[in-house]
Amino acid sequence: MKGEKTVPKTDYTIEPGKQDITSTVVLDAPRELVFKAYTDPKLFARWWGPSRYVNDIDKFDARSGGEWRVVQRGADGSEHAFRGVNHTVDAPERICQTFEYEPMAGHVALQTATFEELGNKTRITAQIVFQSVMDRDGMVASGMKSGADESMERLQDLLDTLKSGK
Amino acid sequence: MKGEKTVPKTDYTIEPGKQDITSTVVLDAPRELVFKAYTDPKLFARWWGPSRYVNDIDKFDARSGGEWRVVQRGADGSEHAFRGVNHTVDAPERICQTFEYEPMAGHVALQTATFEELGNKTRITAQIVFQSVMDRDGMVASGMKSGADESMERLQDLLDTLKSGK
Repeated sequence: MKGEKTVPKTDYTIEPGKQDITSTVVLDAPRELVFKAYTDPKLFARWWGPSRYVNDIDKFDARSGGEWRVVQRGADGSEHAFRGVNHTVDAPERICQTFEYEPMAGHVALQTATFEELGNKTRITAQIVFQSVMDRDGMVASGMKSGADESMERLQDLLDTLKSGK
Repeated sequence: MKGEKTVPKTDYTIEPGKQDITSTVVLDAPRELVFKAYTDPKLFARWWGPSRYVNDIDKFDARSGGEWRVVQRGADGSEHAFRGVNHTVDAPERICQTFEYEPMAGHVALQTATFEELGNKTRITAQIVFQSVMDRDGMVASGMKSGADESMERLQDLLDTLKSGK
Protein backbone atom coordinates (compact mmCIF):
# COMPACT_ATOMS: atom_id res chain seq x y z
CA MET A 1 0.00 0.00 0.00
CA LYS A 2 1.39 3.37 -0.90
CA GLY A 3 2.67 5.38 2.08
CA GLU A 4 2.93 2.32 4.27
CA LYS A 5 6.34 2.21 5.81
CA THR A 6 8.13 1.17 8.95
CA VAL A 7 8.87 4.05 11.28
CA PRO A 8 11.68 3.01 13.60
CA LYS A 9 11.11 3.48 17.30
CA THR A 10 14.17 4.51 19.31
CA ASP A 11 14.26 3.80 23.04
CA TYR A 12 16.38 5.99 25.28
CA THR A 13 17.90 5.27 28.68
CA ILE A 14 18.73 8.54 30.43
CA GLU A 15 19.13 7.99 34.16
CA PRO A 16 19.16 11.00 36.51
CA GLY A 17 22.64 12.00 37.67
CA LYS A 18 24.47 9.83 35.12
CA GLN A 19 26.86 10.99 32.41
CA ASP A 20 25.57 8.91 29.54
CA ILE A 21 22.69 8.29 27.19
CA THR A 22 21.99 4.89 25.67
CA SER A 23 19.57 4.35 22.83
CA THR A 24 18.46 1.29 20.94
CA VAL A 25 16.62 0.97 17.68
CA VAL A 26 15.90 -1.87 15.26
CA LEU A 27 16.13 -1.01 11.58
CA ASP A 28 14.67 -3.09 8.81
CA ALA A 29 17.82 -3.75 6.78
CA PRO A 30 20.80 -6.11 6.88
CA ARG A 31 23.70 -5.15 9.09
CA GLU A 32 26.22 -4.71 6.26
CA LEU A 33 23.95 -2.14 4.63
CA VAL A 34 23.35 -0.26 7.87
CA PHE A 35 27.06 -0.17 8.57
CA LYS A 36 27.69 1.13 5.06
CA ALA A 37 25.21 3.95 5.65
CA TYR A 38 27.28 4.97 8.69
CA THR A 39 30.67 4.80 7.00
CA ASP A 40 30.14 5.90 3.41
CA PRO A 41 30.19 9.72 3.45
CA LYS A 42 27.78 10.07 0.54
CA LEU A 43 25.21 7.87 2.29
CA PHE A 44 25.88 9.36 5.74
CA ALA A 45 25.13 12.85 4.39
CA ARG A 46 21.68 11.64 3.33
CA TRP A 47 20.34 10.71 6.76
CA TRP A 48 22.34 12.27 9.60
CA GLY A 49 20.53 15.01 11.54
CA PRO A 50 17.34 16.92 10.85
CA SER A 51 16.17 17.11 7.24
CA ARG A 52 16.05 20.91 7.37
CA TYR A 53 19.86 20.90 7.11
CA VAL A 54 22.11 19.83 4.27
CA ASN A 55 25.17 17.91 5.48
CA ASP A 56 28.40 19.25 4.10
CA ILE A 57 31.07 16.58 4.65
CA ASP A 58 34.36 18.30 5.39
CA LYS A 59 36.32 15.24 6.64
CA PHE A 60 35.17 11.63 6.78
CA ASP A 61 37.98 9.14 7.19
CA ALA A 62 35.93 6.14 8.35
CA ARG A 63 38.85 4.14 9.71
CA SER A 64 40.26 3.66 13.19
CA GLY A 65 42.39 6.78 13.71
CA GLY A 66 40.52 8.79 11.09
CA GLU A 67 39.00 12.22 11.54
CA TRP A 68 35.50 13.38 10.71
CA ARG A 69 33.91 16.84 10.42
CA VAL A 70 30.43 17.59 9.18
CA VAL A 71 28.73 20.97 8.76
CA GLN A 72 24.94 21.10 8.82
CA ARG A 73 23.79 24.02 6.65
CA GLY A 74 20.28 25.48 6.85
CA ALA A 75 18.45 27.24 4.03
CA ASP A 76 18.65 30.45 6.10
CA GLY A 77 22.46 30.34 6.08
CA SER A 78 22.78 28.85 9.58
CA GLU A 79 25.67 26.46 10.13
CA HIS A 80 26.30 23.80 12.75
CA ALA A 81 29.70 22.14 12.68
CA PHE A 82 30.55 18.87 14.44
CA ARG A 83 33.85 17.05 14.54
CA GLY A 84 35.66 14.13 16.08
CA VAL A 85 38.07 11.28 15.65
CA ASN A 86 37.35 7.59 15.14
CA HIS A 87 38.89 5.51 17.89
CA THR A 88 37.60 2.24 16.41
CA VAL A 89 35.82 1.42 13.18
CA ASP A 90 35.34 -2.34 13.23
CA ALA A 91 33.12 -3.35 10.29
CA PRO A 92 30.32 -4.32 10.51
CA GLU A 93 30.04 -4.37 14.28
CA ARG A 94 31.22 -1.25 15.99
CA ILE A 95 32.14 2.41 15.70
CA CYS A 96 33.63 4.29 18.66
CA GLN A 97 34.43 7.96 18.14
CA THR A 98 34.68 11.33 19.79
CA PHE A 99 32.07 14.00 19.18
CA GLU A 100 32.19 17.77 19.64
CA TYR A 101 29.79 20.51 18.60
CA GLU A 102 32.21 23.26 17.61
CA PRO A 103 30.37 26.21 19.23
CA MET A 104 30.65 24.24 22.50
CA ALA A 105 34.37 23.61 22.00
CA GLY A 106 35.97 21.82 24.91
CA HIS A 107 32.85 19.77 25.64
CA VAL A 108 33.69 16.42 24.11
CA ALA A 109 31.72 13.18 24.23
CA LEU A 110 32.63 9.59 23.41
CA GLN A 111 30.03 7.76 21.35
CA THR A 112 29.86 4.09 20.56
CA ALA A 113 27.47 2.41 18.16
CA THR A 114 27.21 -1.37 18.00
CA PHE A 115 25.38 -3.19 15.23
CA GLU A 116 23.79 -6.59 15.87
CA GLU A 117 22.26 -8.88 13.29
CA LEU A 118 18.64 -9.86 13.90
CA GLY A 119 18.02 -11.94 10.80
CA ASN A 120 17.53 -9.35 8.04
CA LYS A 121 17.14 -6.58 10.59
CA THR A 122 19.77 -4.75 12.60
CA ARG A 123 19.73 -3.57 16.17
CA ILE A 124 21.79 -0.45 16.79
CA THR A 125 22.79 0.29 20.37
CA ALA A 126 24.30 3.73 20.70
CA GLN A 127 25.91 5.07 23.83
CA ILE A 128 27.18 8.60 24.35
CA VAL A 129 29.18 9.34 27.47
CA PHE A 130 29.78 12.97 28.38
CA GLN A 131 32.42 14.66 30.51
CA SER A 132 29.78 15.76 33.00
CA VAL A 133 26.15 15.28 33.98
CA MET A 134 25.65 18.92 32.99
CA ASP A 135 26.91 18.25 29.47
CA ARG A 136 24.65 15.21 29.23
CA ASP A 137 21.60 17.09 30.49
CA GLY A 138 22.38 20.00 28.18
CA MET A 139 22.41 17.64 25.21
CA VAL A 140 19.03 16.21 26.26
CA ALA A 141 17.60 19.74 26.75
CA SER A 142 18.81 20.77 23.28
CA GLY A 143 16.31 18.42 21.68
CA MET A 144 18.71 15.58 21.01
CA LYS A 145 15.96 12.97 21.10
CA SER A 146 13.81 14.48 18.38
CA GLY A 147 16.90 15.01 16.23
CA ALA A 148 17.98 11.42 16.75
CA ASP A 149 14.48 10.10 16.08
CA GLU A 150 14.39 12.04 12.83
CA SER A 151 17.83 10.71 11.87
CA MET A 152 16.64 7.14 12.36
CA GLU A 153 13.52 7.77 10.28
CA ARG A 154 15.63 9.25 7.50
CA LEU A 155 18.08 6.36 7.77
CA GLN A 156 15.26 3.80 7.46
CA ASP A 157 13.95 5.64 4.39
CA LEU A 158 17.42 5.59 2.86
CA LEU A 159 17.83 1.89 3.64
CA ASP A 160 14.45 1.18 2.02
CA THR A 161 15.62 3.04 -1.07
CA LEU A 162 18.93 1.16 -1.16
CA LYS A 163 17.19 -2.21 -0.66
CA SER A 164 14.84 -1.52 -3.54
CA GLY A 165 17.90 -0.79 -5.69
CA LYS A 166 16.74 2.68 -6.67
CA MET B 1 70.79 19.41 50.26
CA LYS B 2 71.37 16.19 48.42
CA GLY B 3 68.32 13.99 48.15
CA GLU B 4 65.94 16.83 48.89
CA LYS B 5 63.30 17.01 46.22
CA THR B 6 59.69 17.87 45.72
CA VAL B 7 57.43 14.85 45.59
CA PRO B 8 54.22 15.86 43.85
CA LYS B 9 51.00 15.04 45.63
CA THR B 10 48.10 14.02 43.39
CA ASP B 11 44.54 14.43 44.67
CA TYR B 12 41.81 12.19 43.27
CA THR B 13 38.07 12.70 43.10
CA ILE B 14 36.34 9.35 42.66
CA GLU B 15 32.67 9.59 43.62
CA PRO B 16 30.65 6.41 44.15
CA GLY B 17 28.39 5.53 41.24
CA LYS B 18 29.99 8.02 38.83
CA GLN B 19 31.75 7.22 35.56
CA ASP B 20 34.76 9.48 35.94
CA ILE B 21 37.95 10.11 37.86
CA THR B 22 39.39 13.58 38.26
CA SER B 23 42.88 14.21 39.58
CA THR B 24 44.85 17.36 40.23
CA VAL B 25 48.54 17.84 40.84
CA VAL B 26 50.87 20.83 40.90
CA LEU B 27 54.27 20.30 39.32
CA ASP B 28 57.26 22.51 39.91
CA ALA B 29 58.00 23.51 36.32
CA PRO B 30 56.72 26.06 33.78
CA ARG B 31 53.69 25.07 31.77
CA GLU B 32 55.47 25.04 28.40
CA LEU B 33 57.95 22.49 29.72
CA VAL B 34 55.22 20.30 31.26
CA PHE B 35 53.27 20.37 28.02
CA LYS B 36 56.40 19.43 26.09
CA ALA B 37 56.90 16.41 28.37
CA TYR B 38 53.38 15.26 27.41
CA THR B 39 53.74 15.80 23.67
CA ASP B 40 57.37 14.97 22.83
CA PRO B 41 57.52 11.17 22.46
CA LYS B 42 61.13 10.93 23.67
CA LEU B 43 60.26 12.81 26.85
CA PHE B 44 56.91 11.07 27.31
CA ALA B 45 58.63 7.67 27.24
CA ARG B 46 60.78 8.75 30.20
CA TRP B 47 57.97 9.32 32.71
CA TRP B 48 54.71 7.63 31.70
CA GLY B 49 53.71 4.63 33.82
CA PRO B 50 55.61 2.62 36.41
CA SER B 51 59.42 2.67 36.22
CA ARG B 52 59.55 -1.14 36.03
CA TYR B 53 58.43 -0.88 32.40
CA VAL B 54 60.20 0.56 29.40
CA ASN B 55 57.89 2.55 27.14
CA ASP B 56 58.11 1.54 23.53
CA ILE B 57 56.50 4.30 21.47
CA ASP B 58 54.74 2.75 18.49
CA LYS B 59 52.70 5.79 17.37
CA PHE B 60 52.77 9.29 18.81
CA ASP B 61 51.25 11.90 16.55
CA ALA B 62 50.71 14.65 19.12
CA ARG B 63 48.30 16.71 17.04
CA SER B 64 44.51 16.97 16.97
CA GLY B 65 43.46 13.96 14.92
CA GLY B 66 46.70 12.06 15.56
CA GLU B 67 47.00 8.51 16.84
CA TRP B 68 49.08 7.23 19.73
CA ARG B 69 50.11 3.72 20.80
CA VAL B 70 52.56 2.87 23.56
CA VAL B 71 53.75 -0.56 24.69
CA GLN B 72 55.04 -0.92 28.25
CA ARG B 73 57.64 -3.70 28.31
CA GLY B 74 58.77 -5.37 31.52
CA ALA B 75 62.18 -6.99 32.10
CA ASP B 76 60.35 -10.34 32.35
CA GLY B 77 59.01 -10.01 28.81
CA SER B 78 55.56 -8.82 29.86
CA GLU B 79 53.88 -6.31 27.56
CA HIS B 80 51.04 -3.87 28.12
CA ALA B 81 49.81 -2.00 25.06
CA PHE B 82 47.67 1.14 25.16
CA ARG B 83 46.31 3.14 22.27
CA GLY B 84 44.05 6.01 21.37
CA VAL B 85 43.46 9.05 19.21
CA ASN B 86 43.95 12.71 20.03
CA HIS B 87 40.72 14.63 19.72
CA THR B 88 42.36 17.95 20.70
CA VAL B 89 45.96 18.92 21.30
CA ASP B 90 45.86 22.63 22.09
CA ALA B 91 49.33 23.76 23.22
CA PRO B 92 50.07 24.51 26.00
CA GLU B 93 46.63 24.24 27.59
CA ARG B 94 44.80 21.06 26.81
CA ILE B 95 44.96 17.49 25.54
CA CYS B 96 41.78 15.47 25.01
CA GLN B 97 42.20 11.92 23.77
CA THR B 98 40.77 8.43 23.81
CA PHE B 99 42.43 5.68 25.81
CA GLU B 100 42.18 1.90 25.54
CA TYR B 101 44.17 -0.89 27.19
CA GLU B 102 44.39 -3.39 24.34
CA PRO B 103 43.70 -6.57 26.36
CA MET B 104 40.45 -4.88 27.42
CA ALA B 105 39.55 -3.98 23.83
CA GLY B 106 36.17 -2.36 23.51
CA HIS B 107 36.46 -0.56 26.84
CA VAL B 108 37.39 2.94 25.82
CA ALA B 109 37.81 6.03 27.97
CA LEU B 110 38.02 9.73 27.15
CA GLN B 111 40.75 11.57 29.01
CA THR B 112 41.33 15.29 29.20
CA ALA B 113 44.32 17.01 30.74
CA THR B 114 44.33 20.76 31.27
CA PHE B 115 47.46 22.70 32.16
CA GLU B 116 47.24 25.93 34.16
CA GLU B 117 50.07 28.34 34.90
CA LEU B 118 50.71 29.05 38.58
CA GLY B 119 53.72 31.33 38.28
CA ASN B 120 56.60 28.98 37.53
CA LYS B 121 54.53 25.97 38.52
CA THR B 122 51.82 24.14 36.62
CA ARG B 123 48.56 22.66 37.79
CA ILE B 124 47.44 19.63 35.82
CA THR B 125 43.79 18.65 36.06
CA ALA B 126 43.16 15.29 34.47
CA GLN B 127 39.74 13.78 33.95
CA ILE B 128 39.02 10.31 32.65
CA VAL B 129 35.45 9.43 31.79
CA PHE B 130 34.59 5.77 31.26
CA GLN B 131 31.77 4.08 29.38
CA SER B 132 30.44 2.61 32.62
CA VAL B 133 30.80 2.81 36.39
CA MET B 134 32.11 -0.78 36.21
CA ASP B 135 34.93 0.26 33.86
CA ARG B 136 35.76 3.18 36.14
CA ASP B 137 35.76 1.02 39.26
CA GLY B 138 37.83 -1.64 37.48
CA MET B 139 40.45 0.95 36.62
CA VAL B 140 40.59 2.09 40.25
CA ALA B 141 40.84 -1.53 41.47
CA SER B 142 43.71 -2.20 39.05
CA GLY B 143 45.96 0.12 41.03
CA MET B 144 45.56 3.14 38.80
CA LYS B 145 46.29 5.56 41.63
CA SER B 146 49.69 4.19 42.56
CA GLY B 147 50.64 4.00 38.88
CA ALA B 148 49.55 7.59 38.34
CA ASP B 149 51.35 8.76 41.50
CA GLU B 150 54.52 7.12 40.26
CA SER B 151 54.11 8.73 36.84
CA MET B 152 53.85 12.17 38.42
CA GLU B 153 56.96 11.53 40.56
CA ARG B 154 58.88 10.43 37.49
CA LEU B 155 57.59 13.42 35.54
CA GLN B 156 58.72 15.83 38.28
CA ASP B 157 62.17 14.17 38.27
CA LEU B 158 62.36 14.56 34.50
CA LEU B 159 61.26 18.20 34.72
CA ASP B 160 63.93 18.83 37.38
CA THR B 161 66.53 17.33 35.03
CA LEU B 162 65.31 19.40 32.10
CA LYS B 163 65.27 22.60 34.18
CA SER B 164 68.83 22.02 35.31
CA GLY B 165 69.81 21.64 31.66
CA LYS B 166 71.36 18.19 32.11
